[in-house]
Amino acid sequence: MAEMKVTPWEVAGEIDYDKLMREFGIDPFAKFSKALPDNVLFRRGIVYGQRDFQRIADCIKNKKEFVMMTGLMPSGKFHFGHKSLVDQIIFYQSLGANVYIAVADIEAYNMRNPNMEELKKTAIEEYLLNYIALGLKPQNCDFYFQSARSNDAKLSNAYYKLAGLFARHATFNEMQAVYGELTPGRMTSSLLQAADMFHPQLPEFGGPKPVVVPIGFDQDPHIRLARDIGQRIKEYSFIQLSSTYHKFAVGLKGGKMSSSDPTSYIALTDTPEEAAAKIRKHAFSGGRATAAEQKKLGANPEIDVSYQWLWEFFEPDDKKLRQIHDDYKSGAMLTGELKELLIGKVTAFLREHQRKREQARKQVDKFLKAD
Amino acid sequence: MAEMKVTPWEVAGEIDYDKLMREFGIDPFAKFSKALPDNVLFRRGIVYGQRDFQRIADCIKNKKEFVMMTGLMPSGKFHFGHKSLVDQIIFYQSLGANVYIAVADIEAYNMRNPNMEELKKTAIEEYLLNYIALGLKPQNCDFYFQSARSNDAKLSNAYYKLAGLFARHATFNEMQAVYGELTPGRMTSSLLQAADMFHPQLPEFGGPKPVVVPIGFDQDPHIRLARDIGQRIKEYSFIQLSSTYHKFAVGLKGGKMSSSDPTSYIALTDTPEEAAAKIRKHAFSGGRATAAEQKKLGANPEIDVSYQWLWEFFEPDDKKLRQIHDDYKSGAMLTGELKELLIGKVTAFLREHQRKREQARKQVDKFLKAD
Repeated sequence: MAEMKVTPWEVAGEIDYDKLMREFGIDPFAKFSKALPDNVLFRRGIVYGQRDFQRIADCIKNKKEFVMMTGLMPSGKFHFGHKSLVDQIIFYQSLGANVYIAVADIEAYNMRNPNMEELKKTAIEEYLLNYIALGLKPQNCDFYFQSARSNDAKLSNAYYKLAGLFARHATFNEMQAVYGELTPGRMTSSLLQAADMFHPQLPEFGGPKPVVVPIGFDQDPHIRLARDIGQRIKEYSFIQLSSTYHKFAVGLKGGKMSSSDPTSYIALTDTPEEAAAKIRKHAFSGGRATAAEQKKLGANPEIDVSYQWLWEFFEPDDKKLRQIHDDYKSGAMLTGELKELLIGKVTAFLREHQRKREQARKQVDKFLKAD
Repeated sequence: MAEMKVTPWEVAGEIDYDKLMREFGIDPFAKFSKALPDNVLFRRGIVYGQRDFQRIADCIKNKKEFVMMTGLMPSGKFHFGHKSLVDQIIFYQSLGANVYIAVADIEAYNMRNPNMEELKKTAIEEYLLNYIALGLKPQNCDFYFQSARSNDAKLSNAYYKLAGLFARHATFNEMQAVYGELTPGRMTSSLLQAADMFHPQLPEFGGPKPVVVPIGFDQDPHIRLARDIGQRIKEYSFIQLSSTYHKFAVGLKGGKMSSSDPTSYIALTDTPEEAAAKIRKHAFSGGRATAAEQKKLGANPEIDVSYQWLWEFFEPDDKKLRQIHDDYKSGAMLTGELKELLIGKVTAFLREHQRKREQARKQVDKFLKAD
């Protein structure tokens, strides 16, 4: 197995999350799992690390104001690897968070695709519609594009001003350490990203308040840089960012789920038939070479992607999951049966989700005119 | 005399403007002087160079829409070295230009003084009030701060978006060539500056149109960089920038007038008494050691600062100036007499100007709420 590598640009090797957390200075999330209402993401340790989460837990407990801030890169397909983040957004929204969602279209333009029209379409068709179908509500949700922060000039000006002032408080060297080769596009994106995370605390947005940013472990360098910049600017007494870290979703073939490889994921817009075919063809199995052998020796659920997907996405009931685990491990359940079980859940989910996604179109305007 | 050096950071040595223009690729302004209404700045070659001015001359001739865009750095005192730029602004405004004036407060914050309140105060007290007193009108004038582009969110968003998109079209190396050591603050300032110059052509601001930017020769690297960036972005069919180049104002002691040396300039807020004392004490003379010698041999007006100031700022009448020149050169006029002649004009100007500047306070709000 290749050496572990976890950067915003590359995730490779077998991930040792505890080692990663020691290296990055991230604390375990476990101690907060029981302080929050039950949620499969916390219960199962899918959300595994945190920085400064105490003040968010306090806000939830004492019903005090806080913000959940996240960004989305409008490219590719929205797949199940993105879903656990959205489930977190919706969970925090249900707990009273003000939700800020930045469409990183300026960043995408600079780093990927210089077609702003296409970026906007992707943000709505692939992301926003799926978010709404998954349960995101327009109340207490500020969904915006980096290229057009608000319909209120005071808010827009305050946001862009913050990105402009942040430039003084970032050094070339620390940016280079995060980004490697530094370009004007990367610098601009980085400063806007820091503004995305801190601007909910500007006076125009109601002043200092705790902000939690849920991310994958690979994105931590962005958080560390933003934390450093945010603490240096003395004009605003920003409260330091809180952040949580979820594990990487397992791809269909094992390894990481990757937007650049359609056989590694199921998109939430894949048809149920496509999804079933992908699982049958690609899902990495922890089973044996023959049915007879598996009945005798059992399978290995820990490396079986179908089982992992039930664990992460499709079987929130711990007892039922345990039963599947034990049946599969003992040999009572064959690989084909496990795959069909997953397929049944995935196709049912997709049918229902895609129906909701079409209904969601009616709500899009409420989000785009949020302010 | 030291070797000529003309960069945005340093102007030194004896300036050979023709050599400079060959090096930078700037064309002479002379051929347009007679195409424009009479103005001492053009008639005397104070505005000496241009790029792509033909399309501005055509707009003026055919009464077509064009923009005069300029920026101001809110630091130091507004002195006579700044005045010829403002005279140009007002001249273009009188010819029908839409005037855009950017207060480069984000740039100043990043490069100089991290006190946004103070920067705003300086912009108004030292710059805007003097501009108004010199004749700037609120009609067709968009005076704005980089930190708060507009009261109209559509306009603000479009401006900041442009700066964000420009990042993709600028390279690290070309920015480094202009700025030397590159910092996030310099990059941000440079992209905002390019947006300042091109955003009058955005659809939200009425679409493509000729824009002229009057500057000093030392600022040409900024124009060259902005021109390159503006031509690379294909989303907006920007018309290339036009620019004009005025000579450096001569400082009171000879050499360049410099904001960092109060004995090199007279500020428009200096009292008439201070101004008179500065001229008597510091104005470099082209006269002789004794009155007797001067009466016999005459003085040298070409190196005499009092004469140069009459030429540049205080004696627009060519015949009268010629008479002074000849009298001084022949020995008919002594240095003390020339200085008193200048002092008479300077103090009369300051008295009148400072009266107008106080009246200008009433108009400030019209400029700050221009959009």
